[in-house]
Amino acid sequence: MTDVSRILSNDTSLRERARVVIPGGMYGHQNARSLPEGFPQFLTHGEGARIWDVDGNEYVDFLCSYGPIVLGHHDRRVDAAFRAATEGTRADCQNGPSPVMVDLAERLVEVVDHADWAMFAKNGTDATTMCVTIARATTGRRRVLVAEGAYHGAAPWCTPLPTGTTPEDRAHLDRFRYNDLESVEAAVARADGDLAAIVVSPFRHDARFDQELVDPAWAAALRRICDDTGAALVLDDVRCGFRLAFGGSWEPIGVRPDLSAWSKAIANGHPLAAVLGNDRFRDGAERIYVTGSFWFAAVPMFASLATIDALEEDDAVVHMERMGMLLRAGLAEQAASHGLTIVQSGPPQMPFLTFSADTAFERANVFTATAARHGAYLHPWHNWFLCGAHTPDDIADALVATDAGFAAVRAAFGGD
Amino acid sequence: MTDVSRILSNDTSLRERARVVIPGGMYGHQNARSLPEGFPQFLTHGEGARIWDVDGNEYVDFLCSYGPIVLGHHDRRVDAAFRAATEGTRADCQNGPSPVMVDLAERLVEVVDHADWAMFAKNGTDATTMCVTIARATTGRRRVLVAEGAYHGAAPWCTPLPTGTTPEDRAHLDRFRYNDLESVEAAVARADGDLAAIVVSPFRHDARFDQELVDPAWAAALRRICDDTGAALVLDDVRCGFRLAFGGSWEPIGVRPDLSAWSKAIANGHPLAAVLGNDRFRDGAERIYVTGSFWFAAVPMFASLATIDALEEDDAVVHMERMGMLLRAGLAEQAASHGLTIVQSGPPQMPFLTFSADTAFERANVFTATAARHGAYLHPWHNWFLCGAHTPDDIADALVATDAGFAAVRAAFGGD
Repeated sequence: MTDVSRILSNDTSLRERARVVIPGGMYGHQNARSLPEGFPQFLTHGEGARIWDVDGNEYVDFLCSYGPIVLGHHDRRVDAAFRAATEGTRADCQNGPSPVMVDLAERLVEVVDHADWAMFAKNGTDATTMCVTIARATTGRRRVLVAEGAYHGAAPWCTPLPTGTTPEDRAHLDRFRYNDLESVEAAVARADGDLAAIVVSPFRHDARFDQELVDPAWAAALRRICDDTGAALVLDDVRCGFRLAFGGSWEPIGVRPDLSAWSKAIANGHPLAAVLGNDRFRDGAERIYVTGSFWFAAVPMFASLATIDALEEDDAVVHMERMGMLLRAGLAEQAASHGLTIVQSGPPQMPFLTFSADTAFERANVFTATAARHGAYLHPWHNWFLCGAHTPDDIADALVATDAGFAAVRAAFGGD
Repeated sequence: MTDVSRILSNDTSLRERARVVIPGGMYGHQNARSLPEGFPQFLTHGEGARIWDVDGNEYVDFLCSYGPIVLGHHDRRVDAAFRAATEGTRADCQNGPSPVMVDLAERLVEVVDHADWAMFAKNGTDATTMCVTIARATTGRRRVLVAEGAYHGAAPWCTPLPTGTTPEDRAHLDRFRYNDLESVEAAVARADGDLAAIVVSPFRHDARFDQELVDPAWAAALRRICDDTGAALVLDDVRCGFRLAFGGSWEPIGVRPDLSAWSKAIANGHPLAAVLGNDRFRDGAERIYVTGSFWFAAVPMFASLATIDALEEDDAVVHMERMGMLLRAGLAEQAASHGLTIVQSGPPQMPFLTFSADTAFERANVFTATAARHGAYLHPWHNWFLCGAHTPDDIADALVATDAGFAAVRAAFGGD
């Protein structure tokens, strides 16, 4: 514990300044107050799978900016496309889009099998909200079904913390349980002919819970229900898109959504979101009014094209899966050797780990804080992310840090 | 009219490709289908106050990307800050913000007099929605008053075209008339103790209407009503911020809002939005949950700091005002010489022009389409924007184009 002051000196003074001019010192998912002591709030650099904080500490990064960094920080191909796109007097945000918007829409329609068209925005929440709006415009209905505990963004209709919103913001929202067909059928029945959309994540990745892969038969049943009722099947691929598959995340199980929401990884960290849809929902998409000052900007679209090319070139999904399995195997062995029972869940490229009998995440906090001090940036209660730049050496270095983490848990809480 | 094919050849083929993969070919405020023939959809370059389309045509730009470009395209100081911020392995979107977020929050609190704190986002709509959410969280009330016809973004609660939204999205919204105290008082009475916020633009800049400057006595009365009722006075400075004043847009009239929404011009085209607030609303701002994958990204914040410095260094607001007055004087003289009655409205740096008896904007369409063909990019029914890079030569060149525009209106419709 003697190295805390070393780690936190510049960070501490920045947090003190931030507390004066930013409510609570920070907000949203990047608020380090929700992480145990030992995690930095402020970061300065990133390269490959490594990041550096304001005190010069280096970490193997297993959050990847909470998803956007899918190829690695400063991937040379994306950086090159970015630099070319920003050379001289080339257009970024102007009175109209640059031709790259058409190139990118064509590329996404080519790569994602359910997609006949694309629209772009800035936030994942923009994309999920647009999907709901398009579904309502097309069907003329109101009810939207989402899974209990699922995160679909931070707008009033979907934010996990309703402070400052009104009950009317969620007036037409109903809930089912992930992978539970009976609960979906009950919610469909309650919709009583007013069903506009079923919005669903590619797998259950709710914060604070063990992750749960989708049951392909359940996904197929959702497709059938939407076919039967005329509702939109909306896949919220904001968190998983381009990490689970090169294409839509449900392509491996053969279930095509009508609409899908994308953001995070589609431009390797550059600000972009997208809605992809099929022809049945094109007319509704034409009739809604959505826009934003920076939605048509060219530079993130050039970065996105380069990202998609690099993902394909590297077969990055397979690589992330392999590196995730290497990490998972190492963690399993370490936990066993320390006499600790853990659950590892989710796809290997978006892994998560919980400790037995750790409902308050006390063990997870000690584990991740200790790992952070030893150079691995994990998260105690949010899923982690692999990226295309993780190497076996990165995993090996991270496992040194996690071994210290498990030892600290064992020392503080004993075995179980 | 013989030069239409010259102007539109590459643009036409891009529009044809776009129609296949983008609903309606384009959407939102940058959809050129809402502009008369002769305007390009796609642009490629910008420098200073000049932009170029995909067919190589050059325009003096009076939309400035619908506001974001406040210093001019590719301002050398902002470009230099941008390049420095993107060098090597420097952080942009990571697991936490870079120190620049604190620097920028401090700078905005210093520059904008009502502000004690700042939060950042990506869209102007994010910022206006956050203001409403913070107001509701702080006051524990629901009702929000907005002016009839005012644009405060494109989320379900405020989009001007409600297709795909539900009545409940606007359940607690009520309307007043801009500059009309009686209508505000009536709406406050209807709120019946449930008033959370009054949301207002710095002046009336509704699309398709002559603009109307704010009556300072009315603004002061809104401040008093909010003081008396405990509601938040929210200034939507997304469109006007840093164009009307170096600071908040109501600083010249001495009325301080509780919360203000910013975007567009704060980073000279880089994607950023901000909410600024006073200490009374700090606690509410801490308690809401809002976030976005790219909200904490460093690069647009570096661009914003450079933009604010340059605006101050140049006294850019005064310059924009002078150039706007030069344009306005020239337009007035030309219209008179062609025997046309026009109304010029709004602040000189955000000017607008309507023709007498032109309710369907037919004259405005001919005027702006002709001006576009002659190298001035205006808009038929949305206010225009000056920027810090406009020179007297730019205005002179634009006036050659507008003279052709007036001549075309006179030829098509006669005098009035």
